[in-house]
Amino acid sequence: MTSSMTFEPVLKRIAREVEQLPGRGRPADYIPVLAARDPRRFGMAVAELDGTVYGVGDWREPFSAQSITKVFTLALDLAREGDALWEHVGREPSGNPFNSLVQLEYENGIPRNPFINAGALVVTDRLHTRTGDAAGELLAFLRAESGNPGLGFDTQVAASENAHGDRNAALAHFMAAYGNIGNPVPELLDQYFRQCSISASCADLALATGFLARHGIRADGGRLLTRSQAKQVNAVMLTCGTYDAAGEFAYRVGLPGKSGVGGGIIAVVPGRCTLCVWSPGLDERGNSVAGVAALDRFTTLTGLSVF
Amino acid sequence: MTSSMTFEPVLKRIAREVEQLPGRGRPADYIPVLAARDPRRFGMAVAELDGTVYGVGDWREPFSAQSITKVFTLALDLAREGDALWEHVGREPSGNPFNSLVQLEYENGIPRNPFINAGALVVTDRLHTRTGDAAGELLAFLRAESGNPGLGFDTQVAASENAHGDRNAALAHFMAAYGNIGNPVPELLDQYFRQCSISASCADLALATGFLARHGIRADGGRLLTRSQAKQVNAVMLTCGTYDAAGEFAYRVGLPGKSGVGGGIIAVVPGRCTLCVWSPGLDERGNSVAGVAALDRFTTLTGLSVF
Amino acid sequence: MTSSMTFEPVLKRIAREVEQLPGRGRPADYIPVLAARDPRRFGMAVAELDGTVYGVGDWREPFSAQSITKVFTLALDLAREGDALWEHVGREPSGNPFNSLVQLEYENGIPRNPFINAGALVVTDRLHTRTGDAAGELLAFLRAESGNPGLGFDTQVAASENAHGDRNAALAHFMAAYGNIGNPVPELLDQYFRQCSISASCADLALATGFLARHGIRADGGRLLTRSQAKQVNAVMLTCGTYDAAGEFAYRVGLPGKSGVGGGIIAVVPGRCTLCVWSPGLDERGNSVAGVAALDRFTTLTGLSVF
Amino acid sequence: MTSSMTFEPVLKRIAREVEQLPGRGRPADYIPVLAARDPRRFGMAVAELDGTVYGVGDWREPFSAQSITKVFTLALDLAREGDALWEHVGREPSGNPFNSLVQLEYENGIPRNPFINAGALVVTDRLHTRTGDAAGELLAFLRAESGNPGLGFDTQVAASENAHGDRNAALAHFMAAYGNIGNPVPELLDQYFRQCSISASCADLALATGFLARHGIRADGGRLLTRSQAKQVNAVMLTCGTYDAAGEFAYRVGLPGKSGVGGGIIAVVPGRCTLCVWSPGLDERGNSVAGVAALDRFTTLTGLSVF
Repeated sequence: MTSSMTFEPVLKRIAREVEQLPGRGRPADYIPVLAARDPRRFGMAVAELDGTVYGVGDWREPFSAQSITKVFTLALDLAREGDALWEHVGREPSGNPFNSLVQLEYENGIPRNPFINAGALVVTDRLHTRTGDAAGELLAFLRAESGNPGLGFDTQVAASENAHGDRNAALAHFMAAYGNIGNPVPELLDQYFRQCSISASCADLALATGFLARHGIRADGGRLLTRSQAKQVNAVMLTCGTYDAAGEFAYRVGLPGKSGVGGGIIAVVPGRCTLCVWSPGLDERGNSVAGVAALDRFTTLTGLSVF
Repeated sequence: MTSSMTFEPVLKRIAREVEQLPGRGRPADYIPVLAARDPRRFGMAVAELDGTVYGVGDWREPFSAQSITKVFTLALDLAREGDALWEHVGREPSGNPFNSLVQLEYENGIPRNPFINAGALVVTDRLHTRTGDAAGELLAFLRAESGNPGLGFDTQVAASENAHGDRNAALAHFMAAYGNIGNPVPELLDQYFRQCSISASCADLALATGFLARHGIRADGGRLLTRSQAKQVNAVMLTCGTYDAAGEFAYRVGLPGKSGVGGGIIAVVPGRCTLCVWSPGLDERGNSVAGVAALDRFTTLTGLSVF
Repeated sequence: MTSSMTFEPVLKRIAREVEQLPGRGRPADYIPVLAARDPRRFGMAVAELDGTVYGVGDWREPFSAQSITKVFTLALDLAREGDALWEHVGREPSGNPFNSLVQLEYENGIPRNPFINAGALVVTDRLHTRTGDAAGELLAFLRAESGNPGLGFDTQVAASENAHGDRNAALAHFMAAYGNIGNPVPELLDQYFRQCSISASCADLALATGFLARHGIRADGGRLLTRSQAKQVNAVMLTCGTYDAAGEFAYRVGLPGKSGVGGGIIAVVPGRCTLCVWSPGLDERGNSVAGVAALDRFTTLTGLSVF
Repeated sequence: MTSSMTFEPVLKRIAREVEQLPGRGRPADYIPVLAARDPRRFGMAVAELDGTVYGVGDWREPFSAQSITKVFTLALDLAREGDALWEHVGREPSGNPFNSLVQLEYENGIPRNPFINAGALVVTDRLHTRTGDAAGELLAFLRAESGNPGLGFDTQVAASENAHGDRNAALAHFMAAYGNIGNPVPELLDQYFRQCSISASCADLALATGFLARHGIRADGGRLLTRSQAKQVNAVMLTCGTYDAAGEFAYRVGLPGKSGVGGGIIAVVPGRCTLCVWSPGLDERGNSVAGVAALDRFTTLTGLSVF
């Protein structure tokens, strides 16, 4: 595949193939607003390094970004704090369902990585301490990178998450008992759930992920991360980005990626492009069924896998 | 870096830099024959797709391959058995020290991946059932790919491993209780320890790994694995190949790799070349200190990381 | 030992022997008010079935009852709810440090027994739902049984516990996520910490425990528990009453007992008498060093062990 | 109940009541010879301190003693080794299914108590080191105490256990890796399974347990255990004797007891008498359904509970 090619034919072909997929999984059902999405919706976008975007299907339809935002929060905190962050959260796969408390207890309140919920709470807590408004910082970044000033929080989703937030509250209090949380837990949870609630489209998120394909450079040419830090984030995405299916995602897709229970997945082809796919039906490990299939087809058809 | 370049200057520079490394870790000490190696020994080899090999330092000195052999056993069984193997061993990172029994119990005797000891025992067991001589099969493969008919088992190492083999015996019996082991445990352990005992040099192992950079094609042009299977093995190496340091290895080195307690590490640049580095001093997670540093420098200097 | 004997000589002998104990452990130090107690304080009381009390040392000095109150909360809820309680909390030893979250996750939010913190939170939650004021209910009961209307909450202790209450908050939210907590977590924690904060003396607590030696009959002759329920509570005390030292307590003391981190321990000789001993120095498992030694001597000297 | 009473009317009444029990559980099915027993068989015996025995039903029918023998092996080793034994095996309830490896790993190869399989293997290993023939020592003891020279091993059961012994082999090798096993694992397993295979009747086992009711004194008047050691064994039976149902057994029956998967249960009324009941149908935790019910009735009817 040469760099002069357009991604449109590939995206159209993938959309047709995905349409034939027999089952599509089920939308997340722990909060009503997510459960209501139609599992057959599907959109996909590819953004080139220069900001050119190609899309297919519902690629301009906003959906709940959820855990995808963890990538951006990580990058924002890493940019400010540097390697000191890694004393408070690890970089190793968790090998357990994403909410497990066992490993957290075994490792004295230091979460395995920034993409399990415990780790994401630590990252948000640290960013919040530094900025006074972690969620606002994140939203401003996403607006700037996507070029979409209309991005915002979905307060209904945030409220609903908070009302079903006992597991995250348990995680936060548990780490606080080990001294690994600096803000009051209710304030931290409010920040955390607002971040997860951000609504954005495939186009928005593919563009916002661009700095990871540009080795740390933002859309406006400024540097967010060092080259080495961008590599770190990509590596953590590949090894930890899809809950307890990181191994399977690695060998099927072969790209750094991060999924969310809203049905979205972002992925990075370092030095080449970024992707975002969305379809609300999830498999039993919390990843979009059609989304993983579409990315699998993408790397197979284009050869753009890291392996 | 163009494909016509030679790797010699890079290797020489890395060797000089590694020489300055202050600490070198400690050799594995659970069996005397490994503990006796000098932690300051260092060798490194790069093999091109066509079998051209470049080396530096002790790159022709044989050392104990140990867990590096798990990659070849996996490939040999996968070639015969195909995807059915994955019903008996997973492909997800373990998130635990490499000998842990906890997760094995939690998951009913199915090991998380083929590179933790439990998973490697399952793969050897299955290959042994199919061939009647798993260790012999492995040795023949390594001789053919490396072009070195002098490769052989180190019976002293194998006997010593067996004498200290209670943890592996426990793992094998435990999985047998779940019906996931087909051969008698003592016979399986004999096979397993003989495989681990194989002595080979950086040159031998870099060449033997070539099929993973050639998308499944052996040195003689025949196909061992499908392109998809080769991608699977590379993905499992990246996410699970370095014990509980896979995440760190991924972001420092950014290549599929597999380490052994003998101090060796193999790595793959898909479509480009393979590497093997050796230095007996290990960090606390069982990976060669100088080996990881050398691979880190290699990807930094050449840009040949997957991220 | 005949029933007409007085316990005074035995108590005096025990006090003298305990005075010679070389080390006394350390007071609980997680909140300042407990850490300030002198580990060499010692008091012990025995209450006969008819309410006659014998004592030695600081037996009339109030101390922080802490986890000892879990026995009374259990009895009060069992009296109202009956066997239905056991669907929400188990009756088996935990085999783990008393705050562990692991087993709770493994068993879907049902704590192993009513004396680990998680189990006590469930019992308080249920009693609170039934009464609207669990802590008030408990205090009224203790006042009535001890005949001491001066008993009260120590608001300084309660506030201090709440300020260090992240582990208990984590436990409560975690069980709430499984649907096993009915009240808002902050309200539950307020109730729980107030209960733990009750100050009472050895005399007070020995008397208040009397219903367990009288097979369920309160001090005023009314029935709190059925004979079978009283046996249940005694059995749970023997198998689970002293954190992770229940086995050792059983064979050294051989009586149903319950300890608290304030340094108190209550014990029951069914059909004969009740005891309370207090000394603030704790061993590494959270039980009073001098307290266990004194009870050990008591059963040895009187033969009043259940074994 | 006075000491001059005979136990016959009580036993007859219990047998009648147990006959009406609707379900009876299922015999152990992991080896064929146990699975073949009729779950409706029932026998019960009570032995007075002087060796007088009362019985009902199939009380003279031999059955497979299985884990009941762990009590005698513990006593025999404790008699020789004293408190040093407790450095190699704990005395705390396990709080986990009886074969769990998790806790063993967490506690570095020291089993929680002598009645889980891991702990029993350690005790047998130590007795075997001291005597050169642990199984022979046990058999001689049981013959002497029961007065039945016809007691013997069931070689068919022992062979069958060995053929299905992978879990126990895993436990033994695992502890050997921690240095807590002294004999070769196959030799230890042979000893262990022979002990478990001993066939004896309710009468035999009630008599053989007598030393625990006589505070350590054997049938011939000689002392096996000190008074304190006999108390220790009783306490461990009460807190750990019935797998993961020790808490429930304590509050339903309220006596030190030990069950086996052959359907037998022994129990001790210290200073008064010993019991053995047998019925092959087990509940899901491995205890005889009719056996527990019969002991429950016994303590209710006679008042001979420790609580």
